[in-house]
Amino acid sequence: MEISDWRKKIDELDEQIVRLINQRAEAAQAIGQLKHKSSMPVYEPQRENNVFEHVRSVNPGPLSNTEVVDIYQRIIDVMRALQRNRD
Amino acid sequence: MEISDWRKKIDELDEQIVRLINQRAEAAQAIGQLKHKSSMPVYEPQRENNVFEHVRSVNPGPLSNTEVVDIYQRIIDVMRALQRNRD
Repeated sequence: MEISDWRKKIDELDEQIVRLINQRAEAAQAIGQLKHKSSMPVYEPQRENNVFEHVRSVNPGPLSNTEVVDIYQRIIDVMRALQRNRD
Repeated sequence: MEISDWRKKIDELDEQIVRLINQRAEAAQAIGQLKHKSSMPVYEPQRENNVFEHVRSVNPGPLSNTEVVDIYQRIIDVMRALQRNRD
């Protein structure tokens, strides 16, 4: 496969990834609304740690756990802001 | 659905997301090796811009394009480091 073929594959993967992170955002929004109704804090460090632990535990590689967690830190930052801004 | 149900859904989504970003990393590694063989630079700003443009164009929401690009900046950073370190 040439570079252009691999890039086509990456573009296809990105379409799936973008769809899934949006589904994740919908779920985070739903949780944000439930938290708001019951006056729970948006920031729950224990849950965030559980998410990092979970993605580490299901990481098949080649990315290292550190690389996966690096990406997830950004995902969690964005989701937390989403819960804050759109309750 | 309660918070715990939504979290179960998020955990399932995360398993899919982690699998796909690892597939993306495999493709990036393959490209890294091809670039190395032909002495091409790892950093190609035009390709990175195309990736951001592409994810914006396929973003169904609720995440804004800015939020999706925020996440993708981290993904691209990790992938670029992967190409540099593991050629």
